[in-house]
Amino acid sequence: MIKKFSKLKSITESEIIEKYLKKLNFDKKESFGFKNDSAYLNSFQNKKIIITNDSIIENVDFFKNDSAQSIAHKIVTSNLSDLSAMGVKPYSYTLNLCIPNYITVDWIENFSNHLFKLQKKYNFFLLGGDLSKSKQLMVSSTFFGHTKYKNIILRDHVKMDDDIWVTGNLGESYVGLKILKNKISNNLDNKIKNYFLKKYYFPKPCMIGYKIAKYCNSGIDISDGFINDLKKIIGKGFGARIKLNSIPTSKFMKIILNKNMLKFDEIINCGDDYELILTVPKKFSHKIQEISYKNKIKVSRIGEIIKTKGIFSIYGKSIISKNYFKHFS
Amino acid sequence: MIKKFSKLKSITESEIIEKYLKKLNFDKKESFGFKNDSAYLNSFQNKKIIITNDSIIENVDFFKNDSAQSIAHKIVTSNLSDLSAMGVKPYSYTLNLCIPNYITVDWIENFSNHLFKLQKKYNFFLLGGDLSKSKQLMVSSTFFGHTKYKNIILRDHVKMDDDIWVTGNLGESYVGLKILKNKISNNLDNKIKNYFLKKYYFPKPCMIGYKIAKYCNSGIDISDGFINDLKKIIGKGFGARIKLNSIPTSKFMKIILNKNMLKFDEIINCGDDYELILTVPKKFSHKIQEISYKNKIKVSRIGEIIKTKGIFSIYGKSIISKNYFKHFS
Repeated sequence: MIKKFSKLKSITESEIIEKYLKKLNFDKKESFGFKNDSAYLNSFQNKKIIITNDSIIENVDFFKNDSAQSIAHKIVTSNLSDLSAMGVKPYSYTLNLCIPNYITVDWIENFSNHLFKLQKKYNFFLLGGDLSKSKQLMVSSTFFGHTKYKNIILRDHVKMDDDIWVTGNLGESYVGLKILKNKISNNLDNKIKNYFLKKYYFPKPCMIGYKIAKYCNSGIDISDGFINDLKKIIGKGFGARIKLNSIPTSKFMKIILNKNMLKFDEIINCGDDYELILTVPKKFSHKIQEISYKNKIKVSRIGEIIKTKGIFSIYGKSIISKNYFKHFS
Repeated sequence: MIKKFSKLKSITESEIIEKYLKKLNFDKKESFGFKNDSAYLNSFQNKKIIITNDSIIENVDFFKNDSAQSIAHKIVTSNLSDLSAMGVKPYSYTLNLCIPNYITVDWIENFSNHLFKLQKKYNFFLLGGDLSKSKQLMVSSTFFGHTKYKNIILRDHVKMDDDIWVTGNLGESYVGLKILKNKISNNLDNKIKNYFLKKYYFPKPCMIGYKIAKYCNSGIDISDGFINDLKKIIGKGFGARIKLNSIPTSKFMKIILNKNMLKFDEIINCGDDYELILTVPKKFSHKIQEISYKNKIKVSRIGEIIKTKGIFSIYGKSIISKNYFKHFS
């Protein structure tokens, strides 16, 4: 199930499949060895297959000259992160590549090698896909995962008094982007710069969702900034009270904040963090702590679901979402 | 599971979903009402879920000013046709829309209404999708269908002496494209012109695959011209003998051929026919005829699988695939 391709200059479609893409099916029968326009999914006893999809586009979600590795990383992370937010374990995926003229064989090699690495790490394989020619580079992917129906974490299942948890540190990839766009003073240690650039180019999905799914009432991954995504889960029925000084930030972020290079507001309003926001009944706090400790994943309890609509600090001040510069304004 | 959208000028993402896309989920639970970044698939007892995907891109698979209805039609037909060639019944799909600035709310309305019509006709629903902004219009879709594992029709399961069958008439949409590009003399009746243009803009998937799957050894849908797709199923192990005068053509095509406006070669070498090539053991001929008659679907037995590699006429002359002009050369 790898189809259609208007040739790269020096290589045919079947050579691309044979040399670079075939390894990604991990020899799984489901892919029919990429010999058909289709693939099949095995069913999992007592489990549902969950699907999610995402597209990333040149000049929208990444820059034209970003490395093949970074682009591969982003399409995988955005999809794995969605699955994790649903409490789902990854299983397989399909890939649609729309490739402009400037893409080289080396690019394809780097792209597929990086996918291979991530597939090994997170344990999923390529079912098939579609190759076509376009003006902009576009990578679109449908991911499949599985879990028991009752363990699926839904966005709109928030309950009153739930604790609000967040994974990892916020604002990291956003700072990377600001550095990249020279919107943060050059007066910054290279080590710190590279730390944030890496967070921007190679964001990590937080894969704790499947492990704690049964304790969570609701969840989402952060792709529009913490406040915007929090809004999506509280919806129209609830509000949230947030302990702003519990918002998790890295030690390098603290340096940047101390130097007034960044407003704290930006951390909670911007960026594709790919961290998770989860709401959890108070009685399961120790379970979340236990499992995250065991898996060495940072989690922070940063607030709770309240009746009063809106998002507030613990001092009752309303926290309003703000629009800072977007990726490509 | 409808995500991300950089606004059309006068309408927000959630209005698009609510007003135009929501109806496409047919109120199926699997879509989570488009409120999550994911959807789930029900499992079918004793059946496999088959997936296929296809992208169509402005200036590659359609022209910029083609109607929203035609573009909706093509993404559906190309995917349903793939499923049918596998012997699979359609079930649901996801949709990735990459939308450039020139797309209007009317366009979205026409596009979604046409999808709705096709969903009703062929009985499948929208699970979810992804909306983004781009320079070129791009529609990418993953389709899901189901069938018993043993009934899946595979490309590479051709057997010696199989009859080669083809559905419908060949070359129709190709002639439509030639008319559109003024590559066919203007000296042609309007009725005939419109007939072929309709075949180009609104190609029909041939949905007989699921009904005859258990009698077929191998199959493919024609998206690169009959000869090219036939080559894919005979692979490296077999050849084919074709009765050229049994190649099915419509009465209007015969007029065009008689007027020497088209070479016969073009009919078998060009075009997205979305008809099926199927190879069937001789003993099942009557089954194919019976089922196609009952379903009012034209089928023609046009040749057989032979040992000698290559594609030949019944007089032993080699039929070589030729490249005529491509959609956008």
